[in-house]
Amino acid sequence: MSSSELAFIKGVASLAAAPVPGLVMGIGDDCAVLRKNEEQVLLVTTDTLVSGVHFDLKWHPLHLLGRKAAAVNLSDIAAMGGRPTFALLSAALSSDLSEQGLQEFMNGFVEMLQEHGVALIGGDTVTAPCPTFTITLLGEMAGAEVCYRAAARQGDEVWVSGFLGEAAAGLALCQKGAAVPAEFAGLLQAHLNPQPRLALGRFLAASGHVHAMMDLSDGLATDLAHICTASGLAAEVDGRNLPLSAATQRAGESLSHDARQWALSGGEDYELLYTVAPGRGEALARQVREELHLQLSCLGRMTGGQGLFLREDGKKRLISYQGYEHHL
Amino acid sequence: MSSSELAFIKGVASLAAAPVPGLVMGIGDDCAVLRKNEEQVLLVTTDTLVSGVHFDLKWHPLHLLGRKAAAVNLSDIAAMGGRPTFALLSAALSSDLSEQGLQEFMNGFVEMLQEHGVALIGGDTVTAPCPTFTITLLGEMAGAEVCYRAAARQGDEVWVSGFLGEAAAGLALCQKGAAVPAEFAGLLQAHLNPQPRLALGRFLAASGHVHAMMDLSDGLATDLAHICTASGLAAEVDGRNLPLSAATQRAGESLSHDARQWALSGGEDYELLYTVAPGRGEALARQVREELHLQLSCLGRMTGGQGLFLREDGKKRLISYQGYEHHL
Repeated sequence: MSSSELAFIKGVASLAAAPVPGLVMGIGDDCAVLRKNEEQVLLVTTDTLVSGVHFDLKWHPLHLLGRKAAAVNLSDIAAMGGRPTFALLSAALSSDLSEQGLQEFMNGFVEMLQEHGVALIGGDTVTAPCPTFTITLLGEMAGAEVCYRAAARQGDEVWVSGFLGEAAAGLALCQKGAAVPAEFAGLLQAHLNPQPRLALGRFLAASGHVHAMMDLSDGLATDLAHICTASGLAAEVDGRNLPLSAATQRAGESLSHDARQWALSGGEDYELLYTVAPGRGEALARQVREELHLQLSCLGRMTGGQGLFLREDGKKRLISYQGYEHHL
Repeated sequence: MSSSELAFIKGVASLAAAPVPGLVMGIGDDCAVLRKNEEQVLLVTTDTLVSGVHFDLKWHPLHLLGRKAAAVNLSDIAAMGGRPTFALLSAALSSDLSEQGLQEFMNGFVEMLQEHGVALIGGDTVTAPCPTFTITLLGEMAGAEVCYRAAARQGDEVWVSGFLGEAAAGLALCQKGAAVPAEFAGLLQAHLNPQPRLALGRFLAASGHVHAMMDLSDGLATDLAHICTASGLAAEVDGRNLPLSAATQRAGESLSHDARQWALSGGEDYELLYTVAPGRGEALARQVREELHLQLSCLGRMTGGQGLFLREDGKKRLISYQGYEHHL
């Protein structure tokens, strides 16, 4: 993120700082949270994907791009623990996209929405110099169960779902341009067709033991630093616990890239990162493995102080915000 | 709108055709309408503004552009008769916009929101080849009072607020590039800084006499044709009733352009177009003039059949969809 974007976000946040009736949480989390009634809240999130910045039509099949455009927004609902309900799509189209290509995008987009029970209820199309898709997604959940970034507590265990760095490895393989060996098919999928962790998010939020939660879009080093900053705490991650798949490690060797760097700073994993009361994480993880067949790993712990630290080879170094920037 | 955009919208609409619990109205009106509780509904709308397509930074001061980006979305809430509540902004920024310029945009954007009691609750910034702003706006109102496009009835009077074609005249003056005489300041304002008709929309929706309503974004010939198509009716407009301001007529003479063409096909008036039970329109208009100090004009009437017809000089011609395309 460039300095002018940071200034922009700060400006928006300060302009929106006044308390507002009906508003539970404004700017600063994966979704805005609005009061719906005494029990339920409404979740709202919006995200923009720009051609040449967030995706490259050279290697991204339009059907999968449509699925991913829906998935990255669904992931924001998952990160609060919510149930997605309705979507709006604003598409800025250019001559780079044929009618056929558009139809493929829409098929993938609606397919992913339907897999999660979401209806497309509105949108807008405009012409633009480059294809840009902005999605707004609404969701619902019990207000008492919402998992905010700022809710981590000192001593909490830090957990993450899935494997880290697979999407970054997949992107690196696409960028290299050569034919990709079959053993790396899963890495390509992670980049081209990520799966939002909605069932996991709801399960964790309903468990009552999860404190803070967010989705991994900018890499662990940035996203866990967000939880630290929002919660006024530090975190310590044990380097031995980073969940790296065998395929990611082999891709690192093949591309002469440190796979651990993908895991720490690679973006777009769209896995869930959460903190849980000490001693509670393993039982929860066991239940998730049995019921949802998802892999969970304990990375480390929330501590007093500030900053995100990585402990490896007996050394401890600050890695806060050494994250991913969306630039292909 | 290009043929591929039309295909895109049709594709979206057909994919979204299935009935969905909680959804009152999906694609096809100024806002999507969701059930909030037994009495109230939630309104949702999204719109995208692209540099070089919807605005030109050569003549559009960023503060006013921020106001307009909010206004065009507020106008969609006005068109249903609703009260706007919360906004999200997704901004795709490029090197064309300095930090100072961005701040000016944000100041105008939030200023317009605050004038209508709306809080900015979220957003997203990305980098892109050209500045693009996507706004999502939420609103609320009584479900029984929502004014849909499809609700016009045969025999209804067709009314419009304000003067038509002023924004198109203002745009033409900006495009000409020369210094604009002071007498045309109001036309520049209509293009650069339109006022959403929220109080009028609420008044008309609460009156109980208004059937169909929408805002004029693409010009009368297109927007009234939308009401005709949605309601399964035709409409007849009397050319003598088109509300043209003296300034618009003088600008037409000065630029050798038919001012009536601006009124029929010029876009971005953001006035309200509505149909009302026969005999009810004038009393309502008198009340609006007294209480809201807004000008209202009766243009004609909804009839059986299909198509939008303009009657002038004793002739009747079909003008459906001879509207405005957003291309600067």
